[in-house]
This record gives sequence, C-alpha cells and structure tokens, in this order.
Amino acid sequence: MRIAQVAPLHESCPPRFYGGTERVVSYLTEELVALGHEVTLFASGDSCTSAVLEAGCEKALRLDSRCRDPLVYHLIMLDRVRRRADEFDILHFHTDYLHFPLFAEYWGKTLTTLHGRLDLPDLPVIMREYKTMPLVSISDAQRAPMPWANWSGTVQHGLPRELHRLGDGVGRYLGFLGRISPEKRPDRAIEIARRAGVPLRIAAKVDPVDQAYFDGTIAPLLRDPLIEFIGEIGEADKAAFLGDAAALLFPIDWPEPFGLVLIEAMANGTPVIAFGHGSVPEIIEDGITGFIVDDIEGAAAAVPQALRLDRSAIRRRFDERFTAERMARDYLALYQRALSGRTALRPAPLRLVASATGRAAQGAAD
Amino acid sequence: MRIAQVAPLHESCPPRFYGGTERVVSYLTEELVALGHEVTLFASGDSCTSAVLEAGCEKALRLDSRCRDPLVYHLIMLDRVRRRADEFDILHFHTDYLHFPLFAEYWGKTLTTLHGRLDLPDLPVIMREYKTMPLVSISDAQRAPMPWANWSGTVQHGLPRELHRLGDGVGRYLGFLGRISPEKRPDRAIEIARRAGVPLRIAAKVDPVDQAYFDGTIAPLLRDPLIEFIGEIGEADKAAFLGDAAALLFPIDWPEPFGLVLIEAMANGTPVIAFGHGSVPEIIEDGITGFIVDDIEGAAAAVPQALRLDRSAIRRRFDERFTAERMARDYLALYQRALSGRTALRPAPLRLVASATGRAAQGAAD
Repeated sequence: MRIAQVAPLHESCPPRFYGGTERVVSYLTEELVALGHEVTLFASGDSCTSAVLEAGCEKALRLDSRCRDPLVYHLIMLDRVRRRADEFDILHFHTDYLHFPLFAEYWGKTLTTLHGRLDLPDLPVIMREYKTMPLVSISDAQRAPMPWANWSGTVQHGLPRELHRLGDGVGRYLGFLGRISPEKRPDRAIEIARRAGVPLRIAAKVDPVDQAYFDGTIAPLLRDPLIEFIGEIGEADKAAFLGDAAALLFPIDWPEPFGLVLIEAMANGTPVIAFGHGSVPEIIEDGITGFIVDDIEGAAAAVPQALRLDRSAIRRRFDERFTAERMARDYLALYQRALSGRTALRPAPLRLVASATGRAAQGAAD
Repeated sequence: MRIAQVAPLHESCPPRFYGGTERVVSYLTEELVALGHEVTLFASGDSCTSAVLEAGCEKALRLDSRCRDPLVYHLIMLDRVRRRADEFDILHFHTDYLHFPLFAEYWGKTLTTLHGRLDLPDLPVIMREYKTMPLVSISDAQRAPMPWANWSGTVQHGLPRELHRLGDGVGRYLGFLGRISPEKRPDRAIEIARRAGVPLRIAAKVDPVDQAYFDGTIAPLLRDPLIEFIGEIGEADKAAFLGDAAALLFPIDWPEPFGLVLIEAMANGTPVIAFGHGSVPEIIEDGITGFIVDDIEGAAAAVPQALRLDRSAIRRRFDERFTAERMARDYLALYQRALSGRTALRPAPLRLVASATGRAAQGAAD
C-alpha cells in the first residue's frame, strides 16, 4: 500500500526529547515499512526514518529558535501533500483539524488520528463542518466529548517490541515519569509514597508554564528524604528508570486520552498504580498489570500488592496488546476498509479490540 | 463588480473597540457599496454593513469568551469563500497568509492586503512558497523586510469623510491616543510635554501583556500634574479627544506600517508631532500637517510651531489624500487591473500615489 504519514512539525519523528504524537507516528511509520508498505513520512527534516522522508521544515520547530510561527510550515507541508495526493492510496494525518479544508474532497482516502484531548469548546464546530472526514480515537474514553463525530475506529498506541526489556525493579523505588503539571498530580504521588513508606523518584520536565506550580506546590514537598527529584530524562534513560522501579505511580486528575508511559512501564514489566480517569481503565488491567485506584489511601494500600505482581506476566500483556506491530495492523485494517470503499459518508464504526492474541478482532461498536 | 471582502474574525466590522484591520475593511466595504458595487463581506456575525454579510462566526472572537481557538472559525470561513469563489469577480483578503493554500489556484482573481508588520522571520518562507499571490502594502515603508515579494501596489488607508470634523483644539492639550506599549513610547510623550510645558492627556488601553510595562515605567511618570491618564476611550469619544487637542504626539520607536491615528488627527485638523519611523514620512507632511522629528528635544521645540499650523489646511490635506473614497478608488484600480488580465505572474507593480487632487496617479514603482 502507498501510505503518506503526515506528522506535526513541532518535534522530529521520533522526538529527541518529550513529544507523544511524533513518537507514535514514528513507531507506526517504521512498522508499516517493516510490514512491506511504501511509506512517505511528511515530518521535520531532522527526523530519522526508513520511510521516504519529505521535510516540512529543516528541523523540529520547537527546537528551532528562528521559528516564531509554526503555522507557516504546517500550511505549506499540508498543501504539498495535497498536490501529491494522487500518488498515495491512503493519507494518514496526525495534524489535528488543520488539513480538513484542504482535504475535504479527498475524505475517502484520508484517516485522521486525533492525539489530544477533545473537550475544547471550538472542536465540535469544525468537526460538524467537516463531518465526512474519518477520525480515529486513541482510546474510547477520548471520544466522550464528541461521541457523535465521524469515528472510524479506536487504535490504541503501541511501542516497538525491542524498545524496552523486562526489568527486575531492583531499585525498589516508586517512579513518576513525565511532566510536572497540576493535572498530572505529582503532589499526590508524593503523598502516596509517604503513606506507603517507599522512596519515590520523580523524573519529569518542568515547562515554563508550570514553573510557578513547581516552585509553589511541589518544591516544598521535595524536602522529605523519601522523595528524589531528578528532572527531565532522555529517551535513553527511560528504560533503566522504569525497569528499576518497583512500580509506577500515575495519579492523574484529568481524562488523559492515552498515557504512553503506562505501556512503557508495562514493556519493562513494571506495575502501574493509576487513578482511573480517561483511558486508564482501557490500558491497565486491575490485578494483572497494575491497580486502578480512587484515592490516595487506595493507592498507598495498593503499593505492597503491586510489588507482588508477576513482572513477566505484565511484560507478556504488553507483548500481546501494545506492540507497534499490533498498532500498525489495526491501522492497516482501517486503511483497507477505506480502500475497499466500505467507508460510507457515516460508516458504522469499526471497533478494534486488542485481544489476548495480539490480533485485532472486529465488531460493531455501540 | 462582484467583490468579496474577507475580514479577520477577531473584531467585528467595524470593531466596537480597538482593532485597525477590521475598521479599515469596514470603511472600504461601505465605500465600495456606495460606489455601486456588489459587495459580500465575510466577517463576524455582529458586524454592521450595507454589503451582504456572510457570518464566519456569531460574534467578534476577541469578545467571545467561549472561543479558545480562532483558527477554527477562520479556516471554515476561508473554505466557504473558496466554495463560492466563482460567484465573485475579485476576492480581497485581509487574513494575512492563512488563505494562501486554499486560493493558490485562484491567485489571478485575488488580492491580499497585509495589515501588519512584515519583519517576522517566518513570513518570507510562506511568501516565497506562494509567490503568485498578489499583495498590497499599506505603506511603501511596510515592504522594507520583503521588497522582493509579489507587490501589486500600495494603498494607504482612508476614513469616511464625515466620520470626523474640523476641531478647534480648544482643550489646549497635547494628546496621546492608542495603546500603552514600549514601542509606542508613551514615556517619550510625557517627557516632550514636560519640556514644552504643555498638558498631556493619554487616552490609551493597557493590554495584559503590557501591564508590567505600565506599572513599572509609565505609572510613576503620571504623578506630574501636567500629565493626565484617562484610559481607553471608545470610537465615539475619539473625535472630541482629537478635535480638542492642540496637537497629537506620535513618538513611536518601531516601523509602524500605517498609523491610523495620524489620519484621524488630520481629519480633525489636529497637527501631529511624530518620530519619522515606518510609514510616518509617507503620511505626515512636515510643516503642513505636522512635524517629523528625530528626538525629544526636537519634538518639544516643534510644539509651539505645531500650534501655529492652520488647522483647516490640515483638514484639507485629509480631504485630498485620506478619505475612504480615495482608498476605495485605489483598490478598484487594482481590482480592474487583475480583471483585465494585466496581472502577470510577477507584474510590474502599480504604484498609487495619493495626489493633491485626491485621484490616484499611476506610475511604475522603483
């Protein structure tokens, strides 16, 4: 199949640091190539890929100090994709809604994965205007603010199988990984660790917008000798951080559409203690890959239980459910469906359920 | 002629408060209708016009607390214009570069007025990508960062003839009107008034982004009894503020592409003492409608001279050079030129010089 993957230009594919969307696009692209497809990746020029790279800009815009207006580069890239639309069987966009006006007439050969939260007041306006554009959610929970939108399916994220290995949790600490921000609730993580009496290591970046929150709310909590703040860590250090952790804490306070770190932990055999918001119940299997809790007390009580979970069984669930290959095959089923013309103006949504065998099972969604 | 005017949606046409671009689009639209043309105005739904109004959103987005993402409404509006492109002889855009990808194939029947500053690092990238799109500058000075772009002409702004009347400067104060911001240099205005020993009234809004500048730099200067800060004033109070002023101070420190307040003062017969940046030398005629100065000393020295200028002669220059009718006729000349197919891929730019008779003279630009 001749496939165009169209990534945002904020980060490279994969990103050098933080950046979920471009990371997932990269994993998907490499897997599609490995499965024998002709893939062209529209992304920043400093991306690394085995697909054909079409550079939408020289380097990742977030790291380019000369770039003030990312919209310029995104518009130019999308228009170039349009002029070459006939060269591809399928155009897979990861650029929010920005391409809708340019590709409204090509809807039948497009697929748009929405990577962000959807509870934004202006999104329904543009989704209703372009109601033929087929959409993909990254969890069923993500759809909640717009269940009526033109969903073609849900495809959960996946990671390359060899990216992480089963770790042994030798560090005996609890881990918190990602971003310091009020909705991620690092304060809850600290309180959970204190109550459980287990050390906590926080590996997280602090965005400028969250600096005041860090200084005012989090920094005072770091005086406890149980708590260690180690700042942002790179992709290379992530595996060791997760593999050495006895468990990961994910005490979020918002409907996270997909927590990539949950499956990264799983790939290391690390159990997760998570608050059950957003996509969490679709990813974590309570009592197998971790525990879903309602409050700090429940989370602290789950710590000794989590330490008793079988790490190799957790890794097995990762292999069954969250590899990039499974993700690529899910997307290929959606591409195939669009190609064979089964995509009507508003098709009955295809539901892809990651099954125990790692193969996508098809069934009508509710 | 069947003309589409496409305005930004941030403010209504005309704006209820601040907002230069939408104000000019409104003046142009009304004048084109008055001249007998069929005009459709694409703008926010709370706009007032004698043209046919096509609402791109319910109300001005800046005043709509539910709007978080103005891009949604702009994209939808531009796409709707595209689907109706065949209904118009000319499509006149005031939406920066946002419409370029959608209208690249229609370039021959489009005109794009750039209303902002052009010394932004990403603008040349998109101007080179869409080099067939015909552009209009609002002053020759505005073009400086991109003299190589596809300029069709310069059309200076104009105001409805009856909007302001000759005032008598009875208030005997110096005026400062607009926004408090470092590049507008209200601090210089205060110093000029002090040295000249003439009272200064500052009618200006303070944007959130400029609050720290106001508090730290300007507020301490307001203790002087010569200086009076009266905050933001509405459109209705502007004429009285300008007409009662003995002179307007315009001590800017940046290349302002067109200072609308300069011609508003002129319409009231009020002389302007201005620093000679950007478009100022194209608008102010030294010794007739005001004085162009280099520094605070020169500005203070110019105050008594400005008070001796003939206010009715200033108003006369406004009537000759800066009415909305002159602006509309300038644009019609450019529309006509596009229609008659004289617009080649890169046409020799048409230079419209506002002459003493108020008629546009045509000649090749350098």
